Amino acid sequence: MSARPIVVLLTDFGLSDWFVGAMKGAVLARCPECAVVDLCHTIEPGAVAQAGWLLQKTFRDFPRGAVFCAVVDPGVGTERRAIAAAGEGCFFIAPDNGLLTGIKHLAADWKCRAITNRDWTDPDRSKTFHGRDVFAPAAAEVARLGGIEKAGEPVGAIVETDLPAAAVAPDGTMAGTIVWFDRFGNAVTTIEREAAEKTLGTATGDWLVEIENLTIRSVASTYADVAPGEALAYWGSLGTLEIGVRNGNARERLGLELNRPVRLRKGRTE
Amino acid sequence: MSARPIVVLLTDFGLSDWFVGAMKGAVLARCPECAVVDLCHTIEPGAVAQAGWLLQKTFRDFPRGAVFCAVVDPGVGTERRAIAAAGEGCFFIAPDNGLLTGIKHLAADWKCRAITNRDWTDPDRSKTFHGRDVFAPAAAEVARLGGIEKAGEPVGAIVETDLPAAAVAPDGTMAGTIVWFDRFGNAVTTIEREAAEKTLGTATGDWLVEIENLTIRSVASTYADVAPGEALAYWGSLGTLEIGVRNGNARERLGLELNRPVRLRKGRTE
Amino acid sequence: MSARPIVVLLTDFGLSDWFVGAMKGAVLARCPECAVVDLCHTIEPGAVAQAGWLLQKTFRDFPRGAVFCAVVDPGVGTERRAIAAAGEGCFFIAPDNGLLTGIKHLAADWKCRAITNRDWTDPDRSKTFHGRDVFAPAAAEVARLGGIEKAGEPVGAIVETDLPAAAVAPDGTMAGTIVWFDRFGNAVTTIEREAAEKTLGTATGDWLVEIENLTIRSVASTYADVAPGEALAYWGSLGTLEIGVRNGNARERLGLELNRPVRLRKGRTE
Repeated sequence: MSARPIVVLLTDFGLSDWFVGAMKGAVLARCPECAVVDLCHTIEPGAVAQAGWLLQKTFRDFPRGAVFCAVVDPGVGTERRAIAAAGEGCFFIAPDNGLLTGIKHLAADWKCRAITNRDWTDPDRSKTFHGRDVFAPAAAEVARLGGIEKAGEPVGAIVETDLPAAAVAPDGTMAGTIVWFDRFGNAVTTIEREAAEKTLGTATGDWLVEIENLTIRSVASTYADVAPGEALAYWGSLGTLEIGVRNGNARERLGLELNRPVRLRKGRTE
Repeated sequence: MSARPIVVLLTDFGLSDWFVGAMKGAVLARCPECAVVDLCHTIEPGAVAQAGWLLQKTFRDFPRGAVFCAVVDPGVGTERRAIAAAGEGCFFIAPDNGLLTGIKHLAADWKCRAITNRDWTDPDRSKTFHGRDVFAPAAAEVARLGGIEKAGEPVGAIVETDLPAAAVAPDGTMAGTIVWFDRFGNAVTTIEREAAEKTLGTATGDWLVEIENLTIRSVASTYADVAPGEALAYWGSLGTLEIGVRNGNARERLGLELNRPVRLRKGRTE
Repeated sequence: MSARPIVVLLTDFGLSDWFVGAMKGAVLARCPECAVVDLCHTIEPGAVAQAGWLLQKTFRDFPRGAVFCAVVDPGVGTERRAIAAAGEGCFFIAPDNGLLTGIKHLAADWKCRAITNRDWTDPDRSKTFHGRDVFAPAAAEVARLGGIEKAGEPVGAIVETDLPAAAVAPDGTMAGTIVWFDRFGNAVTTIEREAAEKTLGTATGDWLVEIENLTIRSVASTYADVAPGEALAYWGSLGTLEIGVRNGNARERLGLELNRPVRLRKGRTE
């Protein structure tokens, strides 16, 4: 594990309030030597599955021993549990609402506990801000102690949800969705390179990407493969298919929206 | 006080420029071991009272010994003083323009000095960016030394301003204002739970919240207390009354604006 | 050099994605004791020259030994080199696309190497995110080792580009451009105070600033020198001429745009 405790924050709190600042204060109050790092705070409000997808795709970018404090929590104030998990050399603090589904499934060494240790949190301080009152303090304790053992009792089943993913039909067609738009307007999809190449092979010359009313031929190596203003598909930095427009904003130019279907198959355009 | 020096930044500089980055550079140049944390940079431009209100509501979320560097400074370049204060186990660096009014009134152990030590700052470098040239360096010195004694001469009176607050009328009606909108469009008001319960008791069944042309009955425990799309009042994470709309944006749906009046009283809706 | 390694990030990645978070993870994975600081992430997409200009204007705000990791990289995925440079007591990691032109010209002790050490980076992980896969890891290595010697072979010439700057005509007129708008709508120009005073003297009483269809007389000391709603020119915090409107947004009120010309000369308004 890392020489220095690291707490990584992932929320839907946005950047226009003091919420993230207050969480950092709560972490540092219990673990002043911590590095507190922002992974992302612009998850769509309440989008548990989007947060779970991003966490699963990015946690390996951080050092082993990192403590991820992921708070997308539309059920704050209700009876949903807070949980602390260990797996893949990292730790994960989150509401028990499905956010950790993906981590659980990929971690062979998954362990999970309910956060019930009253010395760790202050759940009664507010009914609306457990990011500050429950999750950040618990993350600090895990960072400080280097483990989840003192969080509370072990938890067997957790709430699970469908994370954004792609399905493969019997004819080899892959059906995914748009899960993110980046600053530049590129659409990130759930179609994984690894799965696509296993299904369709690595020669992308006769691949077709269908999105809204548009069909894109092949998977480009770089933007320079197409003319300015033209749409292209390429493998993005998370290892999934992305849709862009050279020198342009694909979201606007192609009229794309979150959660819309994307299909990848072999074939010929007429 | 904290094992590790912590400087917390609160400004109206926004997130679209290099201003906050330059302040962090100035802190680290004098105190490299500091943790520099963003509390909030989206104070309304020039809104000294809003910043003072937020500081007073959130500083206790940070560890003792934290140094708050609060820069909302419409008078930059004029003769207003820079001050360093100590109170409630923390330190506060700010222009002498009323921003620290609330901290002064709640800190029994308030001490304050003018920042005149020429080794601490570089006030002549610019007339427009004392965040970088005066306040950040002074905060770093206080963090490094763990005290304000070397800042300059003690200061008796400081400039004071009316911070956002609520008043209680003789009939028990509480009159407050909207002081913040969060990312989700919820309106944060100045009506304090503690004061309200002292005045009106804790049984909220016959409370009425009046805001614009709307009257809301009672104070909800959770969003689930009302139907989707319906407005509700609830106690927010700062201990004050907030107005929201379940699954909606209260600011837009109710046409709310900053500084508008909110009233809380006992009564019956007709 | 600083007691603690510091990596400073400057990108056009914006604040709405996980890109900056992933870069921080990549830095901390190799150098956990690093302070990772955001200088600015709102460079116009692909605006290499704007980033180079800002870097050159602000790097001295950070402690000696700081490692600047500057990623504005429209050529990502093509054959452009990644370079590591040393100069003026700091280190600079960037694509070889002109971004470091200004630093090279002002650093008498400039040294530069190609980043080819395969232990430092993972260039094949993605074709689109060398911020995470190349530049951040290399910055962490430079921060950890305190030098660029192990990056790869020395580089003689680098790609150079025209950074935003001002020119002086034979009649003493200075011609610059608008290079930035800040949160408040003030326009930052490339006209340097030092050069202007060398050319036109320090008595600004008969100076004229021409921008779009507007002529502004003199250079103000503070906003209070003009009436509310009126335009003014003043020396900004980067040592260059800025255009503002008292209590207003100059960008909107004066219809200003990036890269538009600004002229400063002696003369009389009719």
